[in-house]
Amino acid sequence: MTRRLLLGAFLFHPGGAHVTGWRHPSAEPDRHLDPDFYADFARTAERGVFDTIFLADGLYLWDRYPSGIDHYSQVRPEPLTLLSALVAHTRHIGLAATVSTTYNEPYHVARALASLDHLSGGRAGWNLVTSRYDEEARNFGGDAHLDHSRRYERGAEFVRVVERLWDSWGDEAILADKVSGRFADASKLTTTDHRGEFFTVRGPLNITRPPQGHPVQFQAGGSPAGQDLAASTADAVFTRWQPLGEAQAFYAGLKARVVDHGRDPDRFAILPSIRPVVASSRAEAEDLAEELLASTPDTLIVEDVSHTVGQDLTGRSADEPFTYRPDTDTSNESRSPNRLAEWSRAADRVTARELYARAFREQTVVGTPQRVADEMEARFRGGAADGFIVQFLTLPSGIHRFVDLVVPELQRRGLTRTGYEERTLRERFGLERPRVAASIGETRV
Amino acid sequence: MTRRLLLGAFLFHPGGAHVTGWRHPSAEPDRHLDPDFYADFARTAERGVFDTIFLADGLYLWDRYPSGIDHYSQVRPEPLTLLSALVAHTRHIGLAATVSTTYNEPYHVARALASLDHLSGGRAGWNLVTSRYDEEARNFGGDAHLDHSRRYERGAEFVRVVERLWDSWGDEAILADKVSGRFADASKLTTTDHRGEFFTVRGPLNITRPPQGHPVQFQAGGSPAGQDLAASTADAVFTRWQPLGEAQAFYAGLKARVVDHGRDPDRFAILPSIRPVVASSRAEAEDLAEELLASTPDTLIVEDVSHTVGQDLTGRSADEPFTYRPDTDTSNESRSPNRLAEWSRAADRVTARELYARAFREQTVVGTPQRVADEMEARFRGGAADGFIVQFLTLPSGIHRFVDLVVPELQRRGLTRTGYEERTLRERFGLERPRVAASIGETRV
Repeated sequence: MTRRLLLGAFLFHPGGAHVTGWRHPSAEPDRHLDPDFYADFARTAERGVFDTIFLADGLYLWDRYPSGIDHYSQVRPEPLTLLSALVAHTRHIGLAATVSTTYNEPYHVARALASLDHLSGGRAGWNLVTSRYDEEARNFGGDAHLDHSRRYERGAEFVRVVERLWDSWGDEAILADKVSGRFADASKLTTTDHRGEFFTVRGPLNITRPPQGHPVQFQAGGSPAGQDLAASTADAVFTRWQPLGEAQAFYAGLKARVVDHGRDPDRFAILPSIRPVVASSRAEAEDLAEELLASTPDTLIVEDVSHTVGQDLTGRSADEPFTYRPDTDTSNESRSPNRLAEWSRAADRVTARELYARAFREQTVVGTPQRVADEMEARFRGGAADGFIVQFLTLPSGIHRFVDLVVPELQRRGLTRTGYEERTLRERFGLERPRVAASIGETRV
Repeated sequence: MTRRLLLGAFLFHPGGAHVTGWRHPSAEPDRHLDPDFYADFARTAERGVFDTIFLADGLYLWDRYPSGIDHYSQVRPEPLTLLSALVAHTRHIGLAATVSTTYNEPYHVARALASLDHLSGGRAGWNLVTSRYDEEARNFGGDAHLDHSRRYERGAEFVRVVERLWDSWGDEAILADKVSGRFADASKLTTTDHRGEFFTVRGPLNITRPPQGHPVQFQAGGSPAGQDLAASTADAVFTRWQPLGEAQAFYAGLKARVVDHGRDPDRFAILPSIRPVVASSRAEAEDLAEELLASTPDTLIVEDVSHTVGQDLTGRSADEPFTYRPDTDTSNESRSPNRLAEWSRAADRVTARELYARAFREQTVVGTPQRVADEMEARFRGGAADGFIVQFLTLPSGIHRFVDLVVPELQRRGLTRTGYEERTLRERFGLERPRVAASIGETRV
């Protein structure tokens, strides 16, 4: 893999990655379903020579506590329709959609991603998630979430089926010969004929092989099962921002897992998220961070912390100390280390506001463009990151600010490029186009 | 409903509605996954002031017989990604996608269509199908197709859930008030809390109500169960082209069913398909029709007829007479009247070529622009159609020809408009924006 720093532009809630970013004076919450709002985001990311847009997703509305509706901007377009709509507004940038393997069918997902890859000329990406919340289960026939290990078993089988469906049509299958009347060479097609524990899928897919062969596959991979699935099938991992030492240990451990799976660690990108709050002076950036933190109403702070630590604190003041006594088992929902719960446990008594502010501070990099670039460079050169998924705390201002202030600094240091070179997202990630799987065990059509 | 003739531009296989339309000298089979190919289609339809694009679909590749792969152009983009990609290339035209209720989840479908409706400013449409073929079942975990009546029961429940999900957010739910920090008014949201025979869906949806309230709903509705579902929930029906008398009887019968369901028959559009082969002279049009018919290889004729009549004729010459003895029960796959089977039964002996040519002839209107407009006008004024879904036998030439030759004639007769007036697809169909369903039995968030 080239030692160029990879850049993804994170998009989830249109108000920005900060839960009440929509309240910022620069925010445009009345445009959260306006296609021009997203076209501007995508064009700005392309102006900053980002490698890809990275569209997060969840299949639910967080209404576990009232403040989820009252204060939180959660409405947004569906990822695949949105990214398809952005094709015409962009020329180079990758278009990566989060898709759950727990609540989808491999045939639909293989087909939609292949379609996006064709329509965009090889720019599609897939962020595979197994979904985390009971709220999601309840929108798809269940009451509680599928057990964590079963989700990953299903996810692993899902990926295998999707990749085989993508390989249904060999690269030279289409003849389109008007004279002979032969449209395709049947010997270049394979049926999938998959009969597994979770899925039975015959194939072939009704669209030809994606231009990239397989669209670039991202995963989150926080838990051991998640890391193992990622190490065996993903091209890149999106992970949370951690203190440098922990990030280096995570990076080394995951690359070792990739080697264990017989794969090249240099063709596997580890991309922590970064949440910059940037301004031309440190004081101005600090003010902006304080302003964002202060924009979160106390009830949302208390309810957000309640959810995260798994202890119902509603009705308390954000400044009332509490002792950590979790009242629900949320372990099935997320196996990622939960720092708020750890902090609560470690402290004798702590307030919701203290936890909330500490998490906000630990997750953000506040300062000048030089300071943000220093942090990125240290991690990139220090064995902690191959690039970053950049989260903008407010939109649209956050991405404009990053592209105007930080990107030139990264380019000046030679960490990122000033223009696009490769044609497809895979190529930009330094990945070969996969060959069609050997047809052993597969049936000719 | 205004007595303006409604026009839909049918798109399924990119080579055109004729199975080997891709062989025509004007066809561009190497561009079947090129977004510009579809942008041209959409812009041309908009130039012709079509009300909507109507994107057919199937969740399989027809490989029951070898000629399905050898001679038939079946690859195409997935409908929702394609229509989303067309948003930026169009300003007015409706974007209607075929979506199966048998192999999807209501939450995904409600969300994707709401997203397309927002991104397009109220232009989304949904052609509800229950899917017909065993090939589709085999891509989604089954071996054979769900029983016909069960499919429609599932479809009926699916629609109810989707409509309730669309109504999750009342029209005034979003406040986006930066000063108070209130993003939404929770009293304007409802959870769906659906627990039915096929689906359990809590809701609310994570996107606000579509601009149209409910995107326009199309159905096919050939069978009695299909007609009944359409009469109770659809806004428009897409039906096959029939001889005038039969078309009038179908039209009267279906409108009566709509009345039986307590609905206004003038706000329910019946849109037969029409397959024009048009040229400036009758002779030229006849030549074009013959050329298209002759482009179908004999093996494909034999195998296509085998599938349709349910009798394996493979290995025979297209000119070898056979006696109708169906060897498979295809009744579960399609309850639509099967004219080829009827003709085979009625004839003592018949050849595959005769059946194929007769079906081609009966389904096409061949002639001058005046002749095609005459046929459309007679059906429109004669109680057989509220408009038409126009199928182009070859693409892109078919739609260019129709827009250049037939549309001006329709406009000259005052049957269609010369420009767009209404803002949304619903308005163009003369339909009110539905109010949010009363919240009886629904739970406030």
